[in-house]
Amino acid sequence: MKLWEKGLKTDEKIDRFTVGNDRELDLLLAKYDVMASKAHCSMLASIGLLSEEESKAILAELDAIALSIEEGTFTIEEEFEDMHSKIEYLLIQKLGDTGKKIHTARSRNDQVLVAIQLYIKEELKTVMQQVHDLFNLLLDLADTHKKVLLPGYTHLQVAMPSSFGLWFSAYAESLVDDMILLRAASAIADQNPLGSAAGYGSSFPIDRAMTTKELGFATLKYNVVAAQMGRGKVEVSTARALASVGATLAKLSMDICLYMNQNFNFISFPDDLTTGSSIMPHKKNPDVFELVRAKCNVIQALPNELSMLLTNLPSGYHRDLQLTKNSLVPAMQELKACLDILTFSLRKIEVKKDILEDPKYDLLFTVDALNELVKDGMPFRDAYKEIAFQVEKGAFQSSKDAVHTHIGSIGNLCLEEIRQKMERFSK
Amino acid sequence: MKLWEKGLKTDEKIDRFTVGNDRELDLLLAKYDVMASKAHCSMLASIGLLSEEESKAILAELDAIALSIEEGTFTIEEEFEDMHSKIEYLLIQKLGDTGKKIHTARSRNDQVLVAIQLYIKEELKTVMQQVHDLFNLLLDLADTHKKVLLPGYTHLQVAMPSSFGLWFSAYAESLVDDMILLRAASAIADQNPLGSAAGYGSSFPIDRAMTTKELGFATLKYNVVAAQMGRGKVEVSTARALASVGATLAKLSMDICLYMNQNFNFISFPDDLTTGSSIMPHKKNPDVFELVRAKCNVIQALPNELSMLLTNLPSGYHRDLQLTKNSLVPAMQELKACLDILTFSLRKIEVKKDILEDPKYDLLFTVDALNELVKDGMPFRDAYKEIAFQVEKGAFQSSKDAVHTHIGSIGNLCLEEIRQKMERFSK
Amino acid sequence: MKLWEKGLKTDEKIDRFTVGNDRELDLLLAKYDVMASKAHCSMLASIGLLSEEESKAILAELDAIALSIEEGTFTIEEEFEDMHSKIEYLLIQKLGDTGKKIHTARSRNDQVLVAIQLYIKEELKTVMQQVHDLFNLLLDLADTHKKVLLPGYTHLQVAMPSSFGLWFSAYAESLVDDMILLRAASAIADQNPLGSAAGYGSSFPIDRAMTTKELGFATLKYNVVAAQMGRGKVEVSTARALASVGATLAKLSMDICLYMNQNFNFISFPDDLTTGSSIMPHKKNPDVFELVRAKCNVIQALPNELSMLLTNLPSGYHRDLQLTKNSLVPAMQELKACLDILTFSLRKIEVKKDILEDPKYDLLFTVDALNELVKDGMPFRDAYKEIAFQVEKGAFQSSKDAVHTHIGSIGNLCLEEIRQKMERFSK
Amino acid sequence: MKLWEKGLKTDEKIDRFTVGNDRELDLLLAKYDVMASKAHCSMLASIGLLSEEESKAILAELDAIALSIEEGTFTIEEEFEDMHSKIEYLLIQKLGDTGKKIHTARSRNDQVLVAIQLYIKEELKTVMQQVHDLFNLLLDLADTHKKVLLPGYTHLQVAMPSSFGLWFSAYAESLVDDMILLRAASAIADQNPLGSAAGYGSSFPIDRAMTTKELGFATLKYNVVAAQMGRGKVEVSTARALASVGATLAKLSMDICLYMNQNFNFISFPDDLTTGSSIMPHKKNPDVFELVRAKCNVIQALPNELSMLLTNLPSGYHRDLQLTKNSLVPAMQELKACLDILTFSLRKIEVKKDILEDPKYDLLFTVDALNELVKDGMPFRDAYKEIAFQVEKGAFQSSKDAVHTHIGSIGNLCLEEIRQKMERFSK
Repeated sequence: MKLWEKGLKTDEKIDRFTVGNDRELDLLLAKYDVMASKAHCSMLASIGLLSEEESKAILAELDAIALSIEEGTFTIEEEFEDMHSKIEYLLIQKLGDTGKKIHTARSRNDQVLVAIQLYIKEELKTVMQQVHDLFNLLLDLADTHKKVLLPGYTHLQVAMPSSFGLWFSAYAESLVDDMILLRAASAIADQNPLGSAAGYGSSFPIDRAMTTKELGFATLKYNVVAAQMGRGKVEVSTARALASVGATLAKLSMDICLYMNQNFNFISFPDDLTTGSSIMPHKKNPDVFELVRAKCNVIQALPNELSMLLTNLPSGYHRDLQLTKNSLVPAMQELKACLDILTFSLRKIEVKKDILEDPKYDLLFTVDALNELVKDGMPFRDAYKEIAFQVEKGAFQSSKDAVHTHIGSIGNLCLEEIRQKMERFSK
Repeated sequence: MKLWEKGLKTDEKIDRFTVGNDRELDLLLAKYDVMASKAHCSMLASIGLLSEEESKAILAELDAIALSIEEGTFTIEEEFEDMHSKIEYLLIQKLGDTGKKIHTARSRNDQVLVAIQLYIKEELKTVMQQVHDLFNLLLDLADTHKKVLLPGYTHLQVAMPSSFGLWFSAYAESLVDDMILLRAASAIADQNPLGSAAGYGSSFPIDRAMTTKELGFATLKYNVVAAQMGRGKVEVSTARALASVGATLAKLSMDICLYMNQNFNFISFPDDLTTGSSIMPHKKNPDVFELVRAKCNVIQALPNELSMLLTNLPSGYHRDLQLTKNSLVPAMQELKACLDILTFSLRKIEVKKDILEDPKYDLLFTVDALNELVKDGMPFRDAYKEIAFQVEKGAFQSSKDAVHTHIGSIGNLCLEEIRQKMERFSK
Repeated sequence: MKLWEKGLKTDEKIDRFTVGNDRELDLLLAKYDVMASKAHCSMLASIGLLSEEESKAILAELDAIALSIEEGTFTIEEEFEDMHSKIEYLLIQKLGDTGKKIHTARSRNDQVLVAIQLYIKEELKTVMQQVHDLFNLLLDLADTHKKVLLPGYTHLQVAMPSSFGLWFSAYAESLVDDMILLRAASAIADQNPLGSAAGYGSSFPIDRAMTTKELGFATLKYNVVAAQMGRGKVEVSTARALASVGATLAKLSMDICLYMNQNFNFISFPDDLTTGSSIMPHKKNPDVFELVRAKCNVIQALPNELSMLLTNLPSGYHRDLQLTKNSLVPAMQELKACLDILTFSLRKIEVKKDILEDPKYDLLFTVDALNELVKDGMPFRDAYKEIAFQVEKGAFQSSKDAVHTHIGSIGNLCLEEIRQKMERFSK
Repeated sequence: MKLWEKGLKTDEKIDRFTVGNDRELDLLLAKYDVMASKAHCSMLASIGLLSEEESKAILAELDAIALSIEEGTFTIEEEFEDMHSKIEYLLIQKLGDTGKKIHTARSRNDQVLVAIQLYIKEELKTVMQQVHDLFNLLLDLADTHKKVLLPGYTHLQVAMPSSFGLWFSAYAESLVDDMILLRAASAIADQNPLGSAAGYGSSFPIDRAMTTKELGFATLKYNVVAAQMGRGKVEVSTARALASVGATLAKLSMDICLYMNQNFNFISFPDDLTTGSSIMPHKKNPDVFELVRAKCNVIQALPNELSMLLTNLPSGYHRDLQLTKNSLVPAMQELKACLDILTFSLRKIEVKKDILEDPKYDLLFTVDALNELVKDGMPFRDAYKEIAFQVEKGAFQSSKDAVHTHIGSIGNLCLEEIRQKMERFSK
C-alpha cells in the first residue's frame, strides 16, 4: 500500500528498486515515528482539526503500536512501502475515517525528519554514556598503573620515558574532545522539524511550539525550508561526531595491537579475549582490537560518504536523502558495539612491569640528563651537544627514574582535573 | 641551520624533500610561534630557569621579531628548516648564550602544536564573524523580499509555494548549525598544549597554568600525551567545522546557479559580477558562484584527507603530522574568501517578481486546496483523492495566494527568533 | 566450531563481535570457496598428499555442497564462524579423517583471498555485460533521436545547440572509459593467490601452476607476500572501477532529473516509472533516477572507505581485512541493480520535440552566426565583437539549424566508430 | 586582458577570486597549450580557414613561445587571466589580425581539455618509468638478500618464517597491479578532445582526425559532449592510478618505519638519510619514509576530493572544473618526488642478519613442524592439535631452516617470472 497511490500502477521492478531496505531500517525508527505521531495528533486536536474523541482513539491505537514495537511484534510487510504506510494502515483499519485524518498537515518528509532526529538524539545519549564509561575506566586504569613506566616513542623511535598512567589517561582526555563534538551533534539534532511538511510548511494553522514541547526538543528549526535542509545535515553532523569517537578508539586499538606484538610485548590479555589461527597452533590474535580499529576506520569514512551523497543537490527534498539512514544507522550500531567491547576488554588488560630494564631503552633518559646540565647552568643548546657527544661515543649513562612533576606529566597526572573537564563539557 | 644538527650531514636531496613548503606556511604561523615563545620565556623566568635580565632581553627581541612579521619583513631563508630554527637563530645572533636558553623545557613538537592551535583559534574567530555577517545579510534579504513567491520543488518537481523570504532565511538558519560546529572546533583548539615538549613532558618544573593564562587559553590539555595526540585531532575537528560551513555555501551556490539559469530565471546579478565566454558573445556566466560551490566542495573533502593522513598511526609524534597544515591553512584561506565574496555578491542580487504567473506553476497550490477540503471536514486521504482526480482531468484551479501562518512558514518567518537562536549558539 | 579451537573458550561476547555478518556474506562467496577447494584437492592428490581415493571422495562431497549452494539449501549456522568452518565440518562429518586433510597446505587467508578474487572476476564479467547493454541502448537511442535538437548549456547557461543524438551517445562513449577501468580491475583480480597460505607460503611442495590453470586464472601472484597484499588492493581496484561506472550513471541520472523538471521539460517517462507524493496529489516523481544517482554516489565513496580501512597497516594479514567484503559485496549488488533499472527505464524515455522553438533559446546560435562571419573573412575576435554588439542591442537573429558536420558533431555522430572503440577496449 | 571582454568591467574583487592560482599552474601546462595550438593552426590551414602564410607565421610565433617556456622566460602577468589569454595576446601583438584568427573553431574549454590530457599523458609516462626503476631496484634487493630470513607476522603477531627476498619482491610484484592502473589511466587520457569547442562542437568543417594524428593521440573522443565530459573524468582516472601507486609506497614506508624501530630493528639506513630531534640528542628519525607515507596517504585522498568536486554536476562545462588541476598537478609532482626519494633511499638500505636467533621467534616454525607430521601421514587437524599441545606446554622445538620450494615461496622467488609479468603489463 502506498500513501500516494492514485490508481496508477508503478512498475513492480521500480517498486523493489525504490523501496530498498527501508522496511528493515524502519523497524528501528518506528518507535520514533509513533512518538511524533502522538505529538502531532494531540496538536491537531488542540487546533480543532481532530475532535477530542478522535484524538483519544488515535492516541490509544498509537500506544498499542508502540507496545508492539517494544515487544518486537511490529512488522512491515512487503505490501507496505515503509513504516509510515504501515502505521497509517493500522490506524485506518482500526478507526476508519478517523485514522485517515492523522496525515493532516504533515508529509512523510517531516515525519521521517522528526523520527530520525529523535532517533539520533536518543542514540547519541547512549553513545555519550558509553564514552563516559570508557573514560572512567581509562582514568581508573591510569591510576592503578600510574607508576609503571613505558618507553615513549616519536617517529616510532625510542624517545623519552612515558608511563601506563600517561598512556591510559591520554585516551581519557582525548575523549573529552569527542564529547564536545557529540554534544554539538546532539544540539544540531535537537531542533524540531515537525510541521515543515514537504519542506514548505502548510496552510493549516498548526502549533509547532506545542509539538516541540511535547517531543522534548530544546528548540525548533523555525524556517520550514531550513528544517527540510536539516535532512542530511543532521546526519552528517552526527556522523562527524561518531567519526571523532571512532578515530580515538581506532588509535587506541592500534596502540594495543602494537603493544601486544612480541617485539613490544608491553601488554597482554587473557586467552578468552584472543582468537586462534586455522593453521598456526601457537597464535593468540588480537582480533577484537583489530576489528575495533577496522570498524572505526570505516566509521571515519562515513561523513565523506554522506557528503558525497548530498553534495550539489539543490534545496528541496530529493529521494537521494532516503539513503542517509542506510549508512548512519549501521554505523551507530557498530560504534556502540565497539565502545561496549572495548570497555569490556580493557578491564582485563594485563600490564608488563620492568619494561625499561631492557638495554634498548637506555637512551630514553638523554633529555632528562640534558636537563640536569641545564639546571646546573649550561645553556640548552650546549647541553644538547654535550649529551649528543656522549651518545655518539656510547658513553651515555643514566638512572631510570623519571622525576617529572609539572601539570600533566608522569608524576602529576591531574586525573581529577581531567575528570572535571569532562563533566564541564558533558553539560 | 637545523636545531638538531650534531655534525652529521643529512643528504641534501633528503633535506629538500623533508622540508617541503614548510617555510612558506610558517610565515603565516610565525606570529603565533613568537606569541607562545614569549609566554614560555616569561614562564621560564618565573621558575628561575631564566634570570629577569635574560627574560627581558629575550622578550624584547621576540617583540622585534613580531614587529618584522607584522610588517612583512620577516623571512625564512633556505638555510633554515622552519620558523622555529629561524627565530632561535635570530635570538642567538643577538643575545648569544642567552638566546640559546629559550628552547629549555620545550620541543618543536609542542611549539608547533601551540602555534597551530593559536592560529586556528584566531582564524575560527574570523570565520565566525564572517558567518555572522552573511547570516545578517540573509535575514535582511529575507525581510526585504518576504512577499515575493517562488515555486518550491521536491524531487526537482514543482511542488508547493515557497518564497524568497523562506529561501534566504533558510540559509541563515542553516548557518546556526554550522556555528555550533565552529564553536565546538574552537573549544577543542582552546586547550593549551604547551609544555608537552616532545609529547612526554619534561623533567623541568615548568608552570603550565601560567602559560595557559598568558596565552588566553580557556583550559589546558593536561596530559602531555593527550596534548600531543591533539596534533591532527584539532585540525580534523576544525576541518569538519569548515566543511559544515562549506556545505551550506555550496548548496546556496548550487541554488543560485540553478535560479540564474534561463529555464528557472528567478534571480540575476549585475554584469560586473558575471563573466563572459571566449567563444559565445552572449554569455554572462555565474563563475563566482560556481567557484564558491567548487571550492566549498573541495573543503568538504578536507576532513577525509586529514583522516586518511592520520589513520592507523600509533600514538606519539610522526613526521606525517607535518602535512596537516599543508591542507588546513589553504582551506582556511579559501573558506574566508568564499564567505567574503558571497556576502559581497549577494548584496547585489536581483529578484524576479511575478514568477508564479507562469502556468507551469499552477499545480503548486494543490495541497492548499486539499487542505481547504479538510478544513471543511473531509478526511485527509479522501481530499487527497479528490484533488488528484481534478489534476488528472486537468480541471484543477486555484488562487495563487499562500496563506500560511504557522511558525516558520511563508507568512510567519520568525526572523527575530532565528536571530536570537544564532545569538544563543554564538556564545 | 572454530578451525583453530584448542580447548580454550573465547568469550562469547568477543565471538559475536568478531564474527559480525560474515555468515551472511559468505553465502554469496561459498560457491567460490568450494570451487577453489576442489582445485586445491586435485592438486594435493597430484603431489601425493591425498590418495586418489581420498581426493575422489572429497571432490564428490564438494560437488554435493556446490549443488546445495546453487539450490539455496546451504546454510551457515551460528555455531560456525564462517563458510570455511562449515564446509570443512561437512567434509569431516561425511569423510572422517579424510575430510580433515583438505586444509593441508593452505590457510583461511588464501582460501578467502582466492574466493574473493573468483567472486570479483565473475561479478565484473556481469557488470561488463550490463555496461555493454546500456551502451548499446544509448547508441540506439542516439540514432533514433539524432535529429531532435536540445539546448546545450555551459555554466548551466544557454550556450550552443546540442541534440538528443549527442546527449545519448556522449554517455555511451563515456562508458568506454569505464570499461577500460573494469578491464584493468579484472586483470588485477585475475592472478591466483592460492598457495600463499597465511601469507608466507608453505613447506609443502604444492603445485601452484596447477591450481592456477584449474581455476582459470590468467596468471598467478607469484610472491606469496604479494598475494597476501592483494587482499584489499584487489578490492580497492575493483571499487575504483565500480566508482567510475557509478559516476557515469549518476551524472546521467542528474541530467534526467533536471530534464524532467518542469522548467526544462525535455523528456518524460510513463507513469508506471514514476512515484507519487503522500501529500501532493499532482506529483509524478523521478525516484528511480534519484536513487540511481544516490546509490552511485555512495558507490563513488567506496574506494575511499576501503582506503581508510587499509591505510597504514603494515604488511601481513590483519583481521581488519575481513571488513573489505562488507562494503564491496553490497556495492556490487547495488551497481548491478542500478545498471539493470537504468537500462530498463531508459527504453521507455519520451523525448520532447520542438524544444528550441521557445524564444529563450534564441541566443544558442550566436557562435554559428559568428562563424559565418569568420568564414566570410572576418578575424575571429572581430566577429566575436560584432555579434556581442548585436546581442547587447537585442538585434541578434538567426535561423535555428545546426549545420555541424565534423567528426563527433551534431550532424556526424560517429556511432559506428564509438561502437568499434568499445569493442577494442572490451578485449 | 580577457578573451571575452566586451567592454563591461567585471568587478576586480570577482576577478581575483575567479582567477585563483590559474596563472601559476598554467606555467606547467603552457607547453601543451602551445603544442595543441600548433596542431590546431595547421589544421585550420588545411581546411582553408588560414592561408599558408598565416599558418606559417603563427607556427613560427608559437615555436618562439614554446622556446620561452622551455627556457623558463615565459610569464603570465596579472593582467592576463590565464595562459590562453597570454599566448593569444602574444600572437596578436606580433601578427595583428592574423593572430586573432587562431581562436577560430575552438574554445578555451577544448584548449584546456587537450592541454591537460597531453600533460597527463606525459606525466604518466614519467611515473611509469619511475615505477619501473623502483621495481627493478626491489627485484635486485630481493635477489641480493634472498637468503636473509625475517619473521613473518599475521595480526602483527609472530607467525611464520619470511625473508627479505620475499619482502622486497612482494612490493615489486605489487607494483605490477599499479602499472595496470597507470596504463588504464593513460589509455583514458589518450583520446583527443580538441575540436569539441565549448562542448558542443563547431559549425566549421574542422578536421579532428588530423589534429589527433598530429598530437599523437591513440584515438579521439568522437562525441563532442563526451569529450567535454572527459574533463574531470580523465583527472579522476589519473588520480585513481596515482592513488594506487601511492598505496603501495605508503605501505612499504610503513613497513620501513616499523622495521627501523628499535623493537623490530630489522633494517637501518646511513645517518645522512635520517634526521635529528631538537630536544633528544640520540635520535635518528626516519622522516623521509614518514613523509613518503604521509604524502602518499594524501594522494590516496585525491580521487575522493575530485569526485566530491564533480559529483552531481549536470552535463556541460561548469567553472568548477577549473579546480581539478589545482589538486591533480601538485599530487603528480608529489608522487614523482616520492618515487624518486624512495628509489634513492632504498639503494642504501642495510639489512640485519641473524634476526631469527632471538628466542622470541622460536614459534615461527610451528607450521613447518606440523607439516612434517602431515607428510608423515597424520591428518592436518590432528597434527595441528599435537603441535598446539607442545606449544602450550612450552615443549615446542624446531630447527630454524625454512625449506619452502613452491612457486613464489622463500626458496623459489620467481623473480624472473615477476619481471616478465611486469613487461607484459607495461605494453
